[in-house]
Amino acid sequence: MINAFYKEMTGKESVIRQFFDYSRKRATELGPDSVLNFSIGNPSVPAPESATRAMQTLLAEEDPVTLHGYSPTLGQPTTKAAIAASLNRRFGMDYKAEHIFPTSGAAGALSHALRAVTKPGDTVITFAPYFPEYIPYVTGTGAKLVVVPADISSFQINFKKLEELFTPEVSAILINSPNNPSGIVYTTATIERLAALMTKKQEEYGHEIFLITDEPYREIVFEGTDSPFISKFYDNSLCCYSFSKSLSLPGERIGYLAVNPKAVDAEKIVPMCGQISRFTGHNCPSSLMQRAIEPVLDETSDLSIYERNAVLLYDALTRIGYSVVKPGGTFYMFPKAPVEDANEFCWTAAKELGLIIVPGDSFECPGHFRISYCVPTEQIERAIPLFEELFRRYA
Amino acid sequence: MINAFYKEMTGKESVIRQFFDYSRKRATELGPDSVLNFSIGNPSVPAPESATRAMQTLLAEEDPVTLHGYSPTLGQPTTKAAIAASLNRRFGMDYKAEHIFPTSGAAGALSHALRAVTKPGDTVITFAPYFPEYIPYVTGTGAKLVVVPADISSFQINFKKLEELFTPEVSAILINSPNNPSGIVYTTATIERLAALMTKKQEEYGHEIFLITDEPYREIVFEGTDSPFISKFYDNSLCCYSFSKSLSLPGERIGYLAVNPKAVDAEKIVPMCGQISRFTGHNCPSSLMQRAIEPVLDETSDLSIYERNAVLLYDALTRIGYSVVKPGGTFYMFPKAPVEDANEFCWTAAKELGLIIVPGDSFECPGHFRISYCVPTEQIERAIPLFEELFRRYA
Repeated sequence: MINAFYKEMTGKESVIRQFFDYSRKRATELGPDSVLNFSIGNPSVPAPESATRAMQTLLAEEDPVTLHGYSPTLGQPTTKAAIAASLNRRFGMDYKAEHIFPTSGAAGALSHALRAVTKPGDTVITFAPYFPEYIPYVTGTGAKLVVVPADISSFQINFKKLEELFTPEVSAILINSPNNPSGIVYTTATIERLAALMTKKQEEYGHEIFLITDEPYREIVFEGTDSPFISKFYDNSLCCYSFSKSLSLPGERIGYLAVNPKAVDAEKIVPMCGQISRFTGHNCPSSLMQRAIEPVLDETSDLSIYERNAVLLYDALTRIGYSVVKPGGTFYMFPKAPVEDANEFCWTAAKELGLIIVPGDSFECPGHFRISYCVPTEQIERAIPLFEELFRRYA
Repeated sequence: MINAFYKEMTGKESVIRQFFDYSRKRATELGPDSVLNFSIGNPSVPAPESATRAMQTLLAEEDPVTLHGYSPTLGQPTTKAAIAASLNRRFGMDYKAEHIFPTSGAAGALSHALRAVTKPGDTVITFAPYFPEYIPYVTGTGAKLVVVPADISSFQINFKKLEELFTPEVSAILINSPNNPSGIVYTTATIERLAALMTKKQEEYGHEIFLITDEPYREIVFEGTDSPFISKFYDNSLCCYSFSKSLSLPGERIGYLAVNPKAVDAEKIVPMCGQISRFTGHNCPSSLMQRAIEPVLDETSDLSIYERNAVLLYDALTRIGYSVVKPGGTFYMFPKAPVEDANEFCWTAAKELGLIIVPGDSFECPGHFRISYCVPTEQIERAIPLFEELFRRYA
C-alpha cells in the first residue's frame, strides 16, 4: 500500500526549492539576464585539476575488478587511514583509520551520527538559524529536534536559551560551523563555553551527550576568522564532513564521519555505523571516489572567489544600510530584511526585480534573508543596485 | 548517548562475513593456495571497456562544475530517460523518465521501495531461501518480514504456504529472481500464478499489494532459461536493479528503482522516494557514474564465465552424488548437504579442506549450502576433488 506520509509530502516543495524553480522559470520566460539567482549553495568553482587527474590515473592504471569492487562496509582502509592522517596533521588530533567512516556526503554522515548516539524519543538540540534538512535528518531517527532561538546580534550561540531548553532527554547537540545560512564561524570562546556546559550537563544527568558537528564549510573560512577544530574541545564528538564544497564534488557524494578517539565507545561507533547502514539502505560512497580523494585530501578548489564575493557584497550592503553580521566563512550571508516580513521582502524582490534570495523563516530565523554568493562576481556587481533599490523601497 | 541496539549488533558478524574472514585468515597463515573461497558474491570479471571509456570521456570533456555538480534529488534527467528507453526497448515496457529513480545500488532501491509502499506495522512477505540483508532492509522501515518456507524441490514459490501466510496486513511481497542463493529464475508460470494470487488478494482486502522485485542478477541468465520481465505481469510493481553484477561496478553503488507506469500513484512514487531519502540520509548515486552508465545501458561485462562455471560445477556435483537444483542464472548454486546439519558440514569443510561455502541456515533454508562461483574456473577445477572427498566422508 502506498505510504500516506510520504505521498502527502510530495506536494510540499521546500521554500528554497520554490525560489529555485521560480528562478528557472523566469530565466526561461524572460531570458537568463532577467534573474540573479542567489538561492542555491552549489559550488561555482571547478574541482582541482589534481582531483580529476587522480580519477583519470586510477581509471588508466588500476585493475577494474579491484577499483570498482565492493568497498568494505566500513570503508576503503587506505582512504580511512589517509583521512585520519590528514586530520591529525592539520589539527593535531589522534584519529586512527578505525575512527573514520566514509559516507555519501555530510547527509550520510549525519544520518549515521544521529542514529549512533540517540534512540527514538531522545531530544537533539540545534541552533537557529539552521539548515532545514535537519528536521527530516533528526525526525527520521525517531528523535525530537529542539531548536534554540538565534542570537541575531552575532549568530553565535544563545547560551541563556540553551540552558533553559536542556533536559535529561537531550542525547546530542547538532551544530553547523561555519554556518549555513548565517556564514558565521563559532569562535573558540563559543566552543569552549558549549563544551563546558555539555560536560556539566553530562555529569548532572549521568549520561553522555554527544556533540555532532556538521562541517562541510570547514575549508571556506575568511582571513582573520577564529576557526577552531571543534572536536579538540569536547571528547564525545562526531565530526561530519563533506568534500562537496572544499573539492567542488557535491554530486559525487563523498564525505566522512570522524569519531573523536577520546569519545565513549570510540572504537565501536564506526562498526555501529556499518550496522546502521543496513537498516537505512546507505552504502559506502563510490569506490573510485574514495580512492580518488586520497592524494588530494589537503587540497581544495580555488575558494578565493567566495571571500572576494563576501567582501564586495558585505561592504555594499552595509553601505546601503542593511544590517548584516559579517560572515567569517561559507558562501552565505544572512542580512536583516529592512521590513518585518522577510517572506514578503523576498517574494517581492524575486518577483519584481529578479533577485532570488531566500527568507530566513526557512531557517527558523524570521526577519532575515539568505544570500548564496557562490556565483560569478559579476552577478554580485549587477545585484548591488537592485539591493539598493529594494532597501529604498522599504526604508 | 550511545545507541544500545546498534552497539549490541556490532559483536554479531553475519555468518557470510565469518566465513569470509576465516578464509582471509587462513590464506594469510597457510598461503593463498590453502583456501578456495566460495563465500562472496563479488564479480570476478572486469567492467566492460566501454564503461571505463565513458568515465574517461566525461572526465576529459565535460565542465567539472557541471559533471560533479549536485544531481537533482530525483536523479539526472538524461540518465533517467536513458534507463527508461533501455527497459522499454528490451522488455516492451512503457516507462518514462519520471518512473526511474537512480539509487546507490539495489540496496538503496529496496530501502526506498519498501518505505514507499509499506507503513510501520505492515507485513512484507518474502520467500526462503533469501538474501539475509532483507531482515534489516524490511525491519528498518518498521514493517515485519514474514518468510514463506522454501519449496526445496524446485526453489520456485511454495504457493500453498504463501496462501496460508497471507493476511490483510500484507502490503508488499519481495522477490529476488534470478535468486541469491539458489540460482533459480522464477518461470513465467510462477510469476503469472503469483500475480493472479496478488490480484485476488488485492480485491479481497480492498487495498493494493505491491510486488517489489530485487533484480541485480537479471542479466546473468543461462541459455534456455525462461526469464520473464516480472513487471510486465503485475501492475503494482517496483523493480529494483543494480549495475553491480551486469557491469561489474559493485563498489560504485549505482542502480535504480523503476516504478511500473501502470501502478497506483505511479507518477507519485519517484517524488516520494525523494522525500524518503531526506529521512534516511540516502543520496543520489555519484553524478559521474549516473552519466557514465548512459551509453552502456544495453551492454554487460563478459558474463560467460559464470555459465561455464555453473555447468562445470553442476555436472561435477551431481556426478559425485550431490542433490542440486540446476541454477538458471546468477553465480550461485545451492546444493543439499549430504548430512542434516549443513552448518557442521560447512564449518568442517572450511576448517579441514579449505573449502569456504556458506550454510543455508543463513538464508533460512537449512540443510543446504551456497556456493558462489564468481571465481576463476581453475578454482572450480581444484575444488571438485575436495567436494568429492567431503561427500564420501558423509555418504
